Order: sequence, then C-alpha cells, then structure tokens
Amino acid sequence: MSVQKVVLAYSGGLDTSVAVKWLQDQGYAVVACCLDVGEGKDLDFIKQKALQVGAVSSYVIDAKEEFAHEYALIALQAQAMYEEKYPLVSALSRPLIAKKLVEVAEQEGAVAVAHGCTGKGNDQVRFEVSISALNPDLKVLAPVREWSWSREEEIEYAKKNGIPIPINLDSPYSIDQNLWGRAAECGVLEDPWAAPPEGAYDITLPLEQTPDQADVVEIEFVSGVPVSLNGKSYPLSELILKLNEMAGKHGVGRIDHVENRLVGIKSREVYECPGAMTLLKAHKELEDLTLVKEVAHFKPVISKKIAEVIYDGLWFSPLTTALKAFLKETQKYVTGTVRVKLFKGHAIVEGRKSAYSLYDEKLATYTAEDQFDHQSAVGFIQLWGLPTKVQSQVQQKKVTV
Amino acid sequence: MSVQKVVLAYSGGLDTSVAVKWLQDQGYAVVACCLDVGEGKDLDFIKQKALQVGAVSSYVIDAKEEFAHEYALIALQAQAMYEEKYPLVSALSRPLIAKKLVEVAEQEGAVAVAHGCTGKGNDQVRFEVSISALNPDLKVLAPVREWSWSREEEIEYAKKNGIPIPINLDSPYSIDQNLWGRAAECGVLEDPWAAPPEGAYDITLPLEQTPDQADVVEIEFVSGVPVSLNGKSYPLSELILKLNEMAGKHGVGRIDHVENRLVGIKSREVYECPGAMTLLKAHKELEDLTLVKEVAHFKPVISKKIAEVIYDGLWFSPLTTALKAFLKETQKYVTGTVRVKLFKGHAIVEGRKSAYSLYDEKLATYTAEDQFDHQSAVGFIQLWGLPTKVQSQVQQKKVTV
Amino acid sequence: MSVQKVVLAYSGGLDTSVAVKWLQDQGYAVVACCLDVGEGKDLDFIKQKALQVGAVSSYVIDAKEEFAHEYALIALQAQAMYEEKYPLVSALSRPLIAKKLVEVAEQEGAVAVAHGCTGKGNDQVRFEVSISALNPDLKVLAPVREWSWSREEEIEYAKKNGIPIPINLDSPYSIDQNLWGRAAECGVLEDPWAAPPEGAYDITLPLEQTPDQADVVEIEFVSGVPVSLNGKSYPLSELILKLNEMAGKHGVGRIDHVENRLVGIKSREVYECPGAMTLLKAHKELEDLTLVKEVAHFKPVISKKIAEVIYDGLWFSPLTTALKAFLKETQKYVTGTVRVKLFKGHAIVEGRKSAYSLYDEKLATYTAEDQFDHQSAVGFIQLWGLPTKVQSQVQQKKVTV
Amino acid sequence: MSVQKVVLAYSGGLDTSVAVKWLQDQGYAVVACCLDVGEGKDLDFIKQKALQVGAVSSYVIDAKEEFAHEYALIALQAQAMYEEKYPLVSALSRPLIAKKLVEVAEQEGAVAVAHGCTGKGNDQVRFEVSISALNPDLKVLAPVREWSWSREEEIEYAKKNGIPIPINLDSPYSIDQNLWGRAAECGVLEDPWAAPPEGAYDITLPLEQTPDQADVVEIEFVSGVPVSLNGKSYPLSELILKLNEMAGKHGVGRIDHVENRLVGIKSREVYECPGAMTLLKAHKELEDLTLVKEVAHFKPVISKKIAEVIYDGLWFSPLTTALKAFLKETQKYVTGTVRVKLFKGHAIVEGRKSAYSLYDEKLATYTAEDQFDHQSAVGFIQLWGLPTKVQSQVQQKKVTV
Repeated sequence: MSVQKVVLAYSGGLDTSVAVKWLQDQGYAVVACCLDVGEGKDLDFIKQKALQVGAVSSYVIDAKEEFAHEYALIALQAQAMYEEKYPLVSALSRPLIAKKLVEVAEQEGAVAVAHGCTGKGNDQVRFEVSISALNPDLKVLAPVREWSWSREEEIEYAKKNGIPIPINLDSPYSIDQNLWGRAAECGVLEDPWAAPPEGAYDITLPLEQTPDQADVVEIEFVSGVPVSLNGKSYPLSELILKLNEMAGKHGVGRIDHVENRLVGIKSREVYECPGAMTLLKAHKELEDLTLVKEVAHFKPVISKKIAEVIYDGLWFSPLTTALKAFLKETQKYVTGTVRVKLFKGHAIVEGRKSAYSLYDEKLATYTAEDQFDHQSAVGFIQLWGLPTKVQSQVQQKKVTV
Repeated sequence: MSVQKVVLAYSGGLDTSVAVKWLQDQGYAVVACCLDVGEGKDLDFIKQKALQVGAVSSYVIDAKEEFAHEYALIALQAQAMYEEKYPLVSALSRPLIAKKLVEVAEQEGAVAVAHGCTGKGNDQVRFEVSISALNPDLKVLAPVREWSWSREEEIEYAKKNGIPIPINLDSPYSIDQNLWGRAAECGVLEDPWAAPPEGAYDITLPLEQTPDQADVVEIEFVSGVPVSLNGKSYPLSELILKLNEMAGKHGVGRIDHVENRLVGIKSREVYECPGAMTLLKAHKELEDLTLVKEVAHFKPVISKKIAEVIYDGLWFSPLTTALKAFLKETQKYVTGTVRVKLFKGHAIVEGRKSAYSLYDEKLATYTAEDQFDHQSAVGFIQLWGLPTKVQSQVQQKKVTV
Repeated sequence: MSVQKVVLAYSGGLDTSVAVKWLQDQGYAVVACCLDVGEGKDLDFIKQKALQVGAVSSYVIDAKEEFAHEYALIALQAQAMYEEKYPLVSALSRPLIAKKLVEVAEQEGAVAVAHGCTGKGNDQVRFEVSISALNPDLKVLAPVREWSWSREEEIEYAKKNGIPIPINLDSPYSIDQNLWGRAAECGVLEDPWAAPPEGAYDITLPLEQTPDQADVVEIEFVSGVPVSLNGKSYPLSELILKLNEMAGKHGVGRIDHVENRLVGIKSREVYECPGAMTLLKAHKELEDLTLVKEVAHFKPVISKKIAEVIYDGLWFSPLTTALKAFLKETQKYVTGTVRVKLFKGHAIVEGRKSAYSLYDEKLATYTAEDQFDHQSAVGFIQLWGLPTKVQSQVQQKKVTV
Repeated sequence: MSVQKVVLAYSGGLDTSVAVKWLQDQGYAVVACCLDVGEGKDLDFIKQKALQVGAVSSYVIDAKEEFAHEYALIALQAQAMYEEKYPLVSALSRPLIAKKLVEVAEQEGAVAVAHGCTGKGNDQVRFEVSISALNPDLKVLAPVREWSWSREEEIEYAKKNGIPIPINLDSPYSIDQNLWGRAAECGVLEDPWAAPPEGAYDITLPLEQTPDQADVVEIEFVSGVPVSLNGKSYPLSELILKLNEMAGKHGVGRIDHVENRLVGIKSREVYECPGAMTLLKAHKELEDLTLVKEVAHFKPVISKKIAEVIYDGLWFSPLTTALKAFLKETQKYVTGTVRVKLFKGHAIVEGRKSAYSLYDEKLATYTAEDQFDHQSAVGFIQLWGLPTKVQSQVQQKKVTV
C-alpha cells in the first residue's frame, strides 16, 4: 500500500514547517500548497522551503485576481463590516484557500487536508467548514491544534528535526495579510487600554508622518466594480494593491478593534486596510447617489448578514449564494465616478457623479427651478401621521384621564 | 369673541418674522416661542425681535439639558446614524420643539401651533406628526408652505410690513444647529460633484488648519452616559458643547451626505458634529468591551430602527418608547473610560477600560497564561459545520452527478 | 386635433361603467381593459358591456398563467403573508393589471390610464406607483376618487346616462378576487366584534357543511414550483384553481383580519384563499425538509420584506427584483412531494419527501443506527455558552456583591 | 472530608433513576429535584421513588405559576414561534428548571448539578448554558451523555442495582410536557413521510373524534395578560391548563414539525399545544386591534429573535432582558376581549373588542359616516411613489434606450 497524501496549507513560517515533519511522523506524504492572495511574500522562497523541510511536492498558486473578483469584490459591494468596524480581511481569504487545497487534494489523490490554525481562532472554523462543504469526504487535520506544544517544545522539535527557525521568531505579532488588508494580534495588544505600538502596523504611515499635501484620486465604477483610477484601467487586484499604496502613504485605514470571535471570546486586533477603506467609502457614496431609497434602506440588512456568514465561515453555504444574488441585482446602476481626497488618514469623498444619478436638482433645489410639488406634502403628512394621531386620541387619552 | 392664539416656532430669521405678520393677517394673535437647544444664538435679541415684529408675547426656553438627556443621549446610546452616515442633527430637536410648543399652547389657551418649514423638507413632517401625537386637537399651520411666495415676493411683503431684513439674507446656506451638530444645505451644495466650500462649515476647522499637536481626552461613561472629560464632571449638555469645541478645533465630524428624504427626494447636505462623532466613537468602543456578543450583534437592528423612527418623525410613537426600553437595558454595564486622541479630523480611540470588561486576557492570550480549552473547538466545529456538511453531501452531489 | 385616449381598468361593475361616461365628459375616448386573473367572471359579458356604456374599444386579456407564474408563485415561494396573516390577494394582481394597462396604452397611443379606486384603499397606491414606474409619462386618472359622489348621486348619474344598474348593487360587500384568493370588505364587517356573516364568503364551505370524509392530495414541487396534484400535471394557474375547488370544499383558507392599510387606517377584511393556503403549507413543509438551517432562519427576513413591498405597491421597484433574486436561489432544491389531508378547514401535511432532504435519519435517530457524535456536544456547549459565562462572572458578580 | 453533593434534575423515569445510582458510583451524594411545570405527573410518587433509588433527599417544587408568568407569558406576548411553527414547549421550561436546580444546589451546598439529557438534543445546551449563567462555579454533569450505554446496557445496569424498570419502557416515544404544551419524538416519527400515529398524541383529540358542536370562549386580556375565561378569573397557570382541556377536546394545537436543532441536525417532532395555540391566536387578534402600525410591523423582528434566544438556550442572557423590556412596552394597551370559537381543530377568532381599539369605524367605513379625507391620498401617493418614478425616469430609460 502506498503512503497516503495530505495537502497542507503552507505559509513558510515555523508552525507549518514543523507541521510538514509532524504529518510525516503520522505517516503521511505532505503536499505543500501556498496561495498568493496579495500578501506580498517571497513565494519562490516559500516554495523551496517546503521542499527543503520535507514536502513531496510544493504548489504556489497566484490567486490574486480570483480573490479580488470573487471575494474582496463581494465584501466591497456588500459594504461588509464585521461589527460595523472592520472589513473582514482574513475571513475573506480562508474559503478561497480551502477551495484551492481541495482542488489540489482531488488532483493529487490526497485523503486529507491540513491547516496550521490553533484551537482558539476563527480561521480553523472557516477552513474546516469550507473544506467539508467542498468535499465532505476529505479528512481535515489541524496539527498545531493537536500537538498542543508550548513555543519552547515546538522549537525543540524543530531543532531536533533540522527545521530552520525563522529569524523574526520573537516578533510579538501574529500577522495575516491579503490585498484586502493586514491583521495583527498578540503581545502588547492584549491590553485594550494600551495604544497599539507602531510596530503593529506595516502598510500605513502614522498620521504624524503623512504628507502635508493631499492626493486626489478619481475612482470609476461600472456596475459596482471599480475599474479605473484617475482614468487609468487596472485589473481589480492591481487596482486594490495600487490603492493600498496610495492610501497607505496617507495613513488611511487603521482599525483597532475589540471583537467577538466565533469561538466565544473577545479578542483585540489591529487592522490596516487602506485600499479597502478607500474603496468602501467611494462605493458607498456612489450607492447613495444611485440606489433608490427602499434599496438603500434594506441593503444594510443583507450587508450585515453577509458580514456574519463570511466571519462565521459559511462562505460555501447556500445562504451566501442567495445573498450574493440579491447583492448583484443592486449593483446594476452603481456606475459612475467618485473623487476622493486622501489626506491625513482620511479618504474624503469630495464629489460623485453618475449617468444613473437619482439626485434630481430640479426636485432638490431651493431656487426658482424647483419642480417639487409642495402641496403634496400636506396630504402625505396627513396619512403618514394618521396612525400616530389615532393612537394618541384613543390610547393617550385613556391613560391620562 | 376674543382673538384666537397661535404659538409660532420662532427663530428670528426672515421666514418666521414674516410669518408673525402673515398669521396676524389670518386673524390670529401670535405667541412667539424660541427654544435654545444649543445652537448658540443670541436669544435675547430673538425674544425682542419677536415682539418687535408683532408677537403678543415671546417665550425663550432653555432646553439644552433636556435636549441632551432625553434626545441626544438616546441617539448616542443607540449609535443612531441615518443611512450609516449622519447622526440625526435636526431630526432630534424637532420633537422637543414640538413638545414645548404644545406645552406653551396649552398654557396660553392657543388653538393652533405654527412652524416655518417649507413643503419639501423632513421637518414639516416631524413637527406635524409630533404635534398631533401630543395634542391631536391643536391645529397646525405652516405659513411658509402655504404662502408659496418667491424670495422676492417675501421680501416685498416684509418691506411693506416693516419687518427688518436680516443682513446675511443672501447667505447661500440654509442652516440648522443644535448641540448634537450643525446642518447646512442649498446653493453650491446642490451639485454633488462639487466639493463643499469652506463657507458651508462653521464649527470645525478645515484639516489644513488643524493643530499639528494632538489633544488626548479621557471620556468616562456611567451606564452609557458620558459624565466626565479628563476627570472633570459636566452636565451632559455642557460636556457635549465642550467636546464640540475640543474636537471642532481638530476638524472632527464633517459629513457630506446625499440622503433620501422622507418626502421622496434625494438631497445633499453637509453636517458638522464634532462632539457627537467623538462621543459615538468612544461609546461604541466601550460597548465593544462590555456588551456580550449576542447583544452586540442584535443591537444594530434596534439602532437602525431608532434612526429611522427619529428621521421619519415618529419620536412620540409607542414604537420609540419600546425601542428605548430595549436600549436602556443594554446600557447597564456600559461603564468605564475611553481614551480618545483628537488629531487631524480623527477621534481615535487609543484605549478603553471597564470594571465590566468582558475581554478576558486569560482567555484571549496566546501566552502561557492561556486558559481557553483548545480541544473544545473540535466539537464546536463539528456541530457548527454539520448542516453545511449534510447539505453538501445530499444536495451538491445531486447536482454534480 | 383628434380626441385623446384613456385606458380604463374596467370591471363591469357600476363604478367603472359610470367612469366610462365620466371620462367621456372630460373629453376622452375610453378604451376599456379587463383582465382575467382567475376571478371567474363572465368576460364576454364584460367586454360587451364596456362597449355598450360607451367605450371606443374593449380589451379582455387572459392573464391567468402570467399571474400564476410571475406573481402568485413569488408570493408562494416567499411564503409572503401580510402581518403574518393573509397572503396578499389583491396586492398581487394590481401590478400585473397596471402593466397590461400600460401596454395597451402604449399600443393604443393613449395619454392616460384610469382606475376605479377610491381615495381610501391601498389599490390606488399600487396602481399609481406601478404605472409611474412602468411609464412615468402616462397620466393617471382616478374618476371615483375625483368625483366624490355619494352612492345616490352616482346612481342618479348612471340613470341619467343610461348606464345599467347591476342587480346585486345592494350587496353589502366590496369584493376582489383572483386565483390566489378572494377579498371582501364593508358592511357588517365594519364591527370587529361581530363574526363575519356567511354571505361574506363564497369559495369556501362553512366548517359545519364540510364533508366528514377527508381528501388526501399529493402535491409535487420542482424547485419551488408546484407541478402536479396526485401525480397529474397542471399548468400553474389551473393547479391553483383546482386546489381552490378541492380545498374550498373542505372549508380551507378563511381569514378574518383587522389590518393596517398603507394609507394610515385599520380596516377589517375577510379573505378566502383555499388553494393559496394549501400550497403555502405544503411548500413550507418541503422547505423545512430541504433548506439548510441558515437559509431557513434568514429567509423569513426576506419574506417579510417581500410581503411589505407587495402590499405597499412597490412591485416594480428594484428592491423587488433583488428580493426575487435571493428567493430564486433558495428554491433550487425545494423539490419533492408533500401529502396533504384536506379536512374540516385544515390542510394538514401528513408527510413530505425529497431526493434533496437534509433530514438524515442516521443522524436523527435514537436507535442503534445513530451516527451522531454525542461527545462533540461537550465542546460545542462550552464555546456556545462561553460569552454568557464570562458575562455572568464579570457583570453579575459586580451587581450582586 | 464529607461526601460532595450533586443536585439532579429528576423525572422519575429510567434514565434519571439510573443516574442517581451512577452518580453515587462517582462518589456523590445525590439530591433529587423534580419540578412541576404543569405536566400533570404524580409528584408524590416521583418524590418517593427518588429516595427509593438512593437519593439522600428529594425535592418536589410546584413552579406552575412562576412558569406561567415568567416564561409562558413572555412566549405568548412575543408570539414566539420557532421557525414560524411551534411555540417552544420544552425550551421554555429548561431555564426555569436550571434556576431551581441552582437554587437548591446553593441551599444544599452542592458542588454540582446534573441533568439527564443525551448528547444530541437541544436541552443539554439549554441546561448547561443556563446553569453557567446563574452560577458559573457549579460543575455540570450529564450522566446519560457520559455513560453512552445502549438501552440494553442501561437496563442491565438498572437490574443489577435494583432500580425498578418502568412498565411503559417500550413506549416508542420520548415525551416532554409542561402547561405550554407536549412534545413527542422518536420511533415511527423518524420517517418524515409517515403520518404521526395517534399514539404520539395525548392531550388533544383526533379531528375525527371531536364534538360536532363548537364551544365559544371569551378570553379577556389586561395589558397582554390573559386574565379570565368567559368572565371567570383564573391564575394564569390554571387558565392555561383549563384552555388545554377545552381546546384539546376540539383537537386544537397539533403540530408536526421537521425542525433545525441547535446541535446541527434536523429532527422531526410532534407537539400538542391546545391552550398555547388558542391564546396565541386570541392575543394576536387583540394586538391587531390595539397596536399602532409601526409597532405591529416591527414587533415580529423582536419576536423572531426572542424565539431564537429561547430555543438556543440563551434565556439568561442580557439580550433576553432587553428583548423583554421592548416587549413589555408593547403590551400596555393590549387590553380587551376576544371571542374564540373552538371547533374541529380550530381556534377561530370571531370577534375582538377593546377600549383601546385603534380601529376607527369613522375612518374605515364606506358609509356616509366616512371621515377620512380622500384627497389626502393624492399627495400621499405622489410622494410615496416619487423615488420609484425618478428611478424609472433615470435608470429604466438608460437601459432600454
């Protein structure tokens, strides 16, 4: 009987390098798989390192454009913010990574898939629920959760097995990054009264060091998809990365959040999402101009649910499919241009225009051009207020007399 | 038969001054009533002017503390933002003004109440629905809506009747202000592609002129009520006004919004809410620390509805009472201190602490202190993902085979 | 200049017959248009009568199958119930009638469309909002609302103009019917303490006269569409009419409702929806079997909103389109058979089966076949209850000590 | 060192009788505790049996009135229906039982509390989350979940330890009952295509055996609390039990439900809730008469959430407290009388009246008494439909041209 294969989500760090060896100890042949979702890592190095620490083969997959179009864009169009606060950085990439792991596993004839998450985070849930949705027959292994070693025990095991120890091992932060943003947790952040130290941030400048000159960028959207910056077209993943740079320079998109994890605890994390926050602002303003009132007022209900299903690892649920169908319909006329001023940590929308604008100067104006029928208001108010009036007549009287 | 009285919401401006005369023409004796809800006007001048233009009596009522506690505080605790964008400035004061008008009317034996709104705004709805909720027997008059004069006709009438024309009459803005913020509409703002000119703003500095040195303020809350700044206690209305000043200096709280009015049109307005936005940020962070997850995740549903009923003029509806009862229960443990850095248009929460903090370092930490049971996650994920797994086994298979 | 045309929604009753003449008095040539949406009227008679009372041409359009598929089916799949009570009978047909009126108007080159609603009902809103959504250039006329005659004045006018007075004119009820149900209002029903008299009902037998023998019907659904009864296929409109008959015989689907109208008043109406209620029950049970939990728990939010937009006349809003897109996704696996017992006013679902059933006996059973991992529950409960436990430790202790 | 005590939720059945012995084997002294929540058991027998099988003491607590007022009444006023289908029978009693167990444990100085649930149901979650909310220091034991015996092994253990085997042991149903209803699962019910056999029901007559003569009952409510039947006052628990009898005789309240359990599986259960369903219907009708529209339209959002938190075991969460505060405000004017006809499985509301009725005949009538201003509708419709009209003009034109 040949050795069974496991496909491991490999990052190049200590945990997943040790996991290669540990899975071998369990009798598996390990296929390493690293996804590029825009975190800007040295992928060649990671590919080689996987082989060096014992993987039988090593995949590196450029998934940036797929991530941008199928995941980040949904979050953008949904205006998805977990707890009205942060735009779901890691939660977005997990289902895509799971999907690619499953594809590689099916292609390689592997019996299992493995990830490097601990037992306390949200990502283990997202990986495992996604994998079992995509292929319920695959086994899921979670070496780090299973071995339960202390940092010291892990290092000792690594040394004994010739696994190189990364030089930045004593970094106090645990980092995850993709083109939608960067997340950091741990260390000094664990005291919610303490301000996050500058070292927790990487892709945004501190306000104190941002330029005293604003940059202005015009972002063009077609049916809810950002397609150009200052008139120049970009593939979506590049557009986002470009904005990360432009807005990061101005300190846009730092978020410091005490959040409720899916596994029942509160944790404190800091995020940097310069491109995402700039796009979210611009997109919202274009929606304010082009969505009819009843859509504008109900869409947040959908947005809140999308943010929850993404955070909670239910990306591959039929609920997500249905929510996306709703979403797509709303974006049909979200076409136009938004002018954003990047300055001192702000992405300020200064102007928005659209061929589908529902803002009608002839109705809104207070000048002589006014076409709004002011007398309609009399009848409107009479019926709008009628239930309240009857309630007052009947029930308030009863109370006071 | 003696002349019937009408109580007029009097602001001192041209519209309501002309309205005094116009109502007299209709045969009423006019009682002027001006409320101080924190807009910083010269109230003595207004009181005298009302008499000068013909009011039989003139009330000026200091309602700042009532407005702060019974209206602005609800909006703060609800995190009420209309269309996720602006904290309901004018919509909050209208029901209180209506209440005072009704009280004065009952006291004076008036048969009617009058306001100076046009037929196109939201405020006419808020006034009229509130008044009919509080006293359905009172008649409501809307002189400006009724006379339908052009600006020129109005001025001519004023001149003919000896009504002084304000010197700032050619200001392009229509302004409303209270301690929760300041709203401006009209003029150049009617082009949503144009950036708002500096003249539209008054109580915040432009970013370019804000200090290069941050101010840090510690805001203390007791059960959701802000009670002190940097350790010094203030009555709520003073605390908000103080923060308007402190945060306004740093350019905090400018909002530029294309919104959906209750009367069916989109309009573009700019707001300045330095104190409100600072308090809303600080309060949210304290809630993030002290609200249990299920409350944190459901409260936004209540907040959205509160924002809607306030915007839509239903303050005196039994629904508002019920929503407030929910809200009050959630604030019991929202007690603690938030440290806010005011800088370059931002109110950045750098730290938050509470004796009721549900953030538990022993559970959240990744150090050796960790008390979280990592193995619980295995069972949790199995049941959490079970519906998705069964769905995949049964329904996805059916589709693909 | 030739005479301008108006297309009138013509029912054959007194109001719209008088309206033909009244519109002529206003100088219009009247095109009568009567839709068959399953109310079982004598359409030939109506067609002729329109011409007889003066219409220049008279359309009768069979819209039953379009109504069934594009309107009633949406209400079925959405489980749409206004105020959790009644399945939106008239509200469903109004947008379709409006659509056909507009089509005829465009075809005939008419400048206006007219309906026979009074100023107090919901239907005027539905007609007018729908028409202006479909063709904002068409004028809408509402003769009955405009002429404001008493019954006596209307009859007098009719007599003077040779319009035949229907023999059932003194019927105390105002009726509207389509294949999704029948609505009656007025007369004795206006006292909500009085039981509706038998005369208010027409298509259902009173319980006292229903058979003592049940009928059992197997309803088959394919992707949320009912396709056969007891193994026999029917076009949807016929299937619903057939069920109206079968279930009506057993007294299924009477509803007596004090409802909140869009125009601000409460009214009391009685409905008969034998087919609709039977289908709604059966469909819900099949959904219970085939929808994954998170869809089952969120879909009611969509259903409630769909019921509201339908009731409120917003069928042609982009919101409806987006809600329908969500809905459609949820119906993909709602395929299977439901066995319904019709008996004594009940449509009792006795059994349901589906190739896509998510009910898994191996997981649900308490026999030795059980494949559910009972130990998973321990970890699940620990994390599920963790927020509550920490809240209790921190906040309850604070309170009691 | 003295032996440690555990308080066991004791039902008198085989599982909890065996648990007494099993807990002794673990070294505990067992305090048995049986609650009367209206299931109509022989409590004296249970009390004695606990002692007989080895408990050191045995409590029987009459909690019927507390259950009625603090639990069932909330469910009634909330119109709480899990999955729009069943009124939360067992889920309501679990938190009360947990509360009493904790009280007895604190009084007895016990270190633990034990329940007889398996690892597959919802009740284990409800017990354990409730207990840890009320006293996080108490240990929770789940003997049945832990021992994982087959039925045969359990019986063998019982015989070996002199525990009497109940004569109805081979009943195919697992039953739970309280005054809000009766739940049955298992056996033949596990096939969702099979109709539930009569043996699954106990407190309702089959339709075929119900009287051919209706009973009519007038139910009086004061602020949402049912206080009398046909003019005779009852304590709430007696009123519900009385209605169980009256309505059960007519076959009211049978429910057959394939539901989504909290632990991730679908299960099929049948319920009988004659009193609950009768009260829910009556209460809804009184609300339809007395709640103002905006309350009536938002309360279902609260109801849905209450049903979820109850089902999901979060009764003692601060969220429940806040939801109850909302609820209470809505019930202030739900005062009046509802006339219900009990007949052939139906509780038909024939009439409803209230001194706080918002149904205004003067506004609703189509007679000459009509006080509704029909012309108001013109202005109302114009503004109501304005967003749709503008959307059509701007966006539909763009599409079609």
